[in-house]
Amino acid sequence: MIIVMKSRAPQNQAAHVIQELEEKGLKPVPLYGVERTVIAVIGEERDLNIGHLESLKGVEKVMRVVKPYKLVSKEVKSEPTIIEVNGVRIGAKDELTIMAGPCAVESQELMDEVASKLSAMGVKIMRGGAFKPRTGPYSFQGLGKEGLEILRNSADKHGMAIITEILDVRDVEIVEQKADIFQVGARNMQNFELLKELGGTSKPVLLKRGLSATIEEMLMAAEYILSHGNPEVMLCERGIRTFEKETRNTLALATVPLVHELTHLPIIVDPSHATGKKSLIEPMTKAAIACGTDGVIIEVHANPEVAMSDAQQQMRPEEFSQLLENIKPIADAVGKSF
Amino acid sequence: MIIVMKSRAPQNQAAHVIQELEEKGLKPVPLYGVERTVIAVIGEERDLNIGHLESLKGVEKVMRVVKPYKLVSKEVKSEPTIIEVNGVRIGAKDELTIMAGPCAVESQELMDEVASKLSAMGVKIMRGGAFKPRTGPYSFQGLGKEGLEILRNSADKHGMAIITEILDVRDVEIVEQKADIFQVGARNMQNFELLKELGGTSKPVLLKRGLSATIEEMLMAAEYILSHGNPEVMLCERGIRTFEKETRNTLALATVPLVHELTHLPIIVDPSHATGKKSLIEPMTKAAIACGTDGVIIEVHANPEVAMSDAQQQMRPEEFSQLLENIKPIADAVGKSF
Amino acid sequence: MIIVMKSRAPQNQAAHVIQELEEKGLKPVPLYGVERTVIAVIGEERDLNIGHLESLKGVEKVMRVVKPYKLVSKEVKSEPTIIEVNGVRIGAKDELTIMAGPCAVESQELMDEVASKLSAMGVKIMRGGAFKPRTGPYSFQGLGKEGLEILRNSADKHGMAIITEILDVRDVEIVEQKADIFQVGARNMQNFELLKELGGTSKPVLLKRGLSATIEEMLMAAEYILSHGNPEVMLCERGIRTFEKETRNTLALATVPLVHELTHLPIIVDPSHATGKKSLIEPMTKAAIACGTDGVIIEVHANPEVAMSDAQQQMRPEEFSQLLENIKPIADAVGKSF
Amino acid sequence: MIIVMKSRAPQNQAAHVIQELEEKGLKPVPLYGVERTVIAVIGEERDLNIGHLESLKGVEKVMRVVKPYKLVSKEVKSEPTIIEVNGVRIGAKDELTIMAGPCAVESQELMDEVASKLSAMGVKIMRGGAFKPRTGPYSFQGLGKEGLEILRNSADKHGMAIITEILDVRDVEIVEQKADIFQVGARNMQNFELLKELGGTSKPVLLKRGLSATIEEMLMAAEYILSHGNPEVMLCERGIRTFEKETRNTLALATVPLVHELTHLPIIVDPSHATGKKSLIEPMTKAAIACGTDGVIIEVHANPEVAMSDAQQQMRPEEFSQLLENIKPIADAVGKSF
Repeated sequence: MIIVMKSRAPQNQAAHVIQELEEKGLKPVPLYGVERTVIAVIGEERDLNIGHLESLKGVEKVMRVVKPYKLVSKEVKSEPTIIEVNGVRIGAKDELTIMAGPCAVESQELMDEVASKLSAMGVKIMRGGAFKPRTGPYSFQGLGKEGLEILRNSADKHGMAIITEILDVRDVEIVEQKADIFQVGARNMQNFELLKELGGTSKPVLLKRGLSATIEEMLMAAEYILSHGNPEVMLCERGIRTFEKETRNTLALATVPLVHELTHLPIIVDPSHATGKKSLIEPMTKAAIACGTDGVIIEVHANPEVAMSDAQQQMRPEEFSQLLENIKPIADAVGKSF
Repeated sequence: MIIVMKSRAPQNQAAHVIQELEEKGLKPVPLYGVERTVIAVIGEERDLNIGHLESLKGVEKVMRVVKPYKLVSKEVKSEPTIIEVNGVRIGAKDELTIMAGPCAVESQELMDEVASKLSAMGVKIMRGGAFKPRTGPYSFQGLGKEGLEILRNSADKHGMAIITEILDVRDVEIVEQKADIFQVGARNMQNFELLKELGGTSKPVLLKRGLSATIEEMLMAAEYILSHGNPEVMLCERGIRTFEKETRNTLALATVPLVHELTHLPIIVDPSHATGKKSLIEPMTKAAIACGTDGVIIEVHANPEVAMSDAQQQMRPEEFSQLLENIKPIADAVGKSF
Repeated sequence: MIIVMKSRAPQNQAAHVIQELEEKGLKPVPLYGVERTVIAVIGEERDLNIGHLESLKGVEKVMRVVKPYKLVSKEVKSEPTIIEVNGVRIGAKDELTIMAGPCAVESQELMDEVASKLSAMGVKIMRGGAFKPRTGPYSFQGLGKEGLEILRNSADKHGMAIITEILDVRDVEIVEQKADIFQVGARNMQNFELLKELGGTSKPVLLKRGLSATIEEMLMAAEYILSHGNPEVMLCERGIRTFEKETRNTLALATVPLVHELTHLPIIVDPSHATGKKSLIEPMTKAAIACGTDGVIIEVHANPEVAMSDAQQQMRPEEFSQLLENIKPIADAVGKSF
Repeated sequence: MIIVMKSRAPQNQAAHVIQELEEKGLKPVPLYGVERTVIAVIGEERDLNIGHLESLKGVEKVMRVVKPYKLVSKEVKSEPTIIEVNGVRIGAKDELTIMAGPCAVESQELMDEVASKLSAMGVKIMRGGAFKPRTGPYSFQGLGKEGLEILRNSADKHGMAIITEILDVRDVEIVEQKADIFQVGARNMQNFELLKELGGTSKPVLLKRGLSATIEEMLMAAEYILSHGNPEVMLCERGIRTFEKETRNTLALATVPLVHELTHLPIIVDPSHATGKKSLIEPMTKAAIACGTDGVIIEVHANPEVAMSDAQQQMRPEEFSQLLENIKPIADAVGKSF
């Protein structure tokens, strides 16, 4: 940690800061420059209260030297985390994980139809929302627990695993029973009570990046889950909010190689929510694979024109089947199969 | 609602859209232009599924004509909502509501000291966090229920009301019992399960604007609470995330007159979190009052240098007392007293 | 164009708007809804002054129906624009354009070394900055006209074309003489006087997306150049400013397929400035190719450690040679050669 | 400057960095921590090439300790800069500068009418655009030099000074002759060639904050002008781009006290462009005054309904006269007169 004193701060203010740091068992090294004094601190900075240090007299600012996260970092665990679900090895170097399914669970019939078609294409993990976070109270809020049952039934008929969104700490137990992967949505990335609760479960968690979150904030959110006991977290880039109006969000694909540089956790790309436009899903899926994503999660609906949410970005099964064919050469080029 | 067809969409695609709208009981009016067809829709557009319409063949985009919120709008209720708490009339034209207190509840002694000093200055509503949402799992997470008790005790000794943050739906009952106003933090503005739950309580809610939320999204979040039964919501501008690095957030004061134009709900400004810098709190408080805020919420700590969070932005009681004196001429100039 | 009247606007205000529109030769169609009146306007909306309409009494807002650009749009010219430079066909479906070279021209020796190595790798277009836009006045500002001469000399020795940045309208003539492609930097995307001037030249222009510009704004900037007479414009996605701190900018790759949907102009991706990190250049180049970019522009310096600007993102020639080899399988997979 | 080495960087890499710094005449102080080595550098960091240091082997990142600007800072000149124009003392503690006038100069008649009315209200500085930067090439681009003449004529008839926008380095001479203050628009804040040219003139410059610029970037742009010889620069907060759609931009009023903390230059607030909505101009003007702005610049048009640009945000003279009356109590409260 580096503490920068104000340019005309008297010496006794620096002395006071140094004394405080020594009392905490750290080793402060003052550097007296021409314009100002800077105090470098040797020791574990993650435990220090930056706000407190910044409130001391004469302090201009405090700068961190190390990353604030530990358990998710490569420095703690250098080999990649591989999460096995239904025979799929999420995060394995030579595999591309494919998750697909409708935005929301709407009926047993529609779910069965999707499950049947997806499993025929070789898809092993199906998505579907039972609890839906909607911007307004007058939009369809999902079928809730009934939706969970429908999802489980359809998946079981076709030997599929399911991933579904969790919104409420009170639903953790039932979702843990019914689903194979918890999905934490962008709006809940910093719902810390939910993250802590998921840290106590036995199922993997897909953590979506918040609408305006930095990668560091996403990693800190993952750190909550790991530090509460659950090591099986996969991150998800689903686009961030920018000034662009042509797309729903802006897919920040540099997240993929960055996550691989900074952490051992797998990264999944969601081109459906990132673009909000059916025509962009295939090119963005190809781009994600080319830069090394561990997987993609794509919205597929048996009949998008009657979908109760996100109709404009859900693919038909036959369109999705074509996409799987079209992305194959790119997957081959980077040595991944699915 | 306005449906814009693609420039070379064949007539039968427009015809299909028109038919769908008529089946839903709406009145579509097609306008055949030189470049493209546009379909104006007369009727209640809030119930329509925009995504569905956008997924129809030949449709380029769908544009809303009316605001998506109802209950919070001035069109539904034109006179301002006034919320009474401990003798303070929040939202009353001639009153300026002052809420103050520490970021986090740390001990009975510190709370008592703050409460005693604030009540002596005439402050009637005290803030203090028992449950703290922190970016990282290794930061102080608050005293929890014990903190609530401490807060209640201190407030009772000095005849004050309390406002405190609620993070978890499972704590709604206990906080409703102990506190006078629920605070929903920026990170929970779109925690819809929590909003629904608060809609069923009997205590007012202060709803903070999300870090990157638009005003419309904040109003939709308030609409959740009102539509679930609780009409006593006050909004809070606490700064939004921008590219600026000199301040913690960017205080968007135009929110104040805009909220007064669009809704009947009171608006409170939080200059402490909006700036993150003690020296900016007084000028921003003055600015907020000058443009008509109904109140301010300011962090005051008995001894900021030992504070366990947000130390650099908490004022000392004597600094806060000076602030109250300095803002008086501005409050007088706009006809508000406190 | 759609004009939305305020919810309680009296009929005579709508009548006044209608009369104004008719006087301008347009065909207004009023739609009287339950809550408000909406006026749809048939005719050429690009010539209308939206601000004026919004200032009329009773008008709540005015919404555009069509895109504000014409000449750059696919509706005006459906086949792709192909720009030939030194045997390279920029924008051709089966070609991937490679532009490479140092951030700044520093000396004849360094330029010669880079030119010799790049041309040996088959690169036909070399970049190099003679005029440098720097955030601060104390940073290296480029060699200016001397730099242009150096660039031309090095390129001529090895049969290469050159692309270089233009900052000042007064330099257009000399740059037109010496260079083969004008580069307009992100900070000058809306330097309209410069755009107009470039519209009068005979050399192609690479127009970089502004730091916070939308795609529509970039297309409007291109429209300036085309409407002033120069049809040879290529767009460049070089990353936008977001809240992310791990990368210099955020590369928004959905721009690539979007530009291909909306316009006939070629799109080039700049992974060097978009990321600012050498380790991310190769994965982002691969991703750009996979989603269909027409070309890439990459910073290569003979000796990055002594570079006078952007040292951390410039590749060594041998690293770049390796990159060219590594991206080949992806280029093959999408049917492009270079 | 602080150089953070990678966590497992071998000692000889740190040694190499230290040697380089010593060769440059600086004093590097290595600090060997448990996790990594940090090198603090004593000496003038503004001359160092950060990019170069970041490109050295083993370096993770380089952090600046001091601000990158000098001449604009309070550390170089502690008393406020006061700029005198037509008897107005811009930046004087007890004065509030009022600048007003139409967005664009449209005709001699309209300018005369505005000038006559504004001067009758006591306004001494009139704004008006002769050269207009417009997003699209098909919008009104201003009357150019003819507009400058009109502006000068109207001002002279009524004893007013004028401020007008400069877009093109080739117009600096003529604008310097005709106008009293140069205005640099938001889109040109980083048009460094223009800034350098203005550094060589004898007239004051009002420098508007860029659409997404940080305060530091605005100060660096001002530093360009000062370092090229012109000390009379006033900064202008005119709103920044955010996700908010209800207003044209987001007025960031904390800029006002921050600029006063960081620099000796005056700050002017432009509530017209910051909000784009007539109803918000008065509350935002009051707020700006309450937090200490040195002045405001407001759009006033003799007949907004026929204005050729920005019609929805220009006030009528009688509305503006009312505004001047309404802001008086706030100006009184902060000890400023106009």
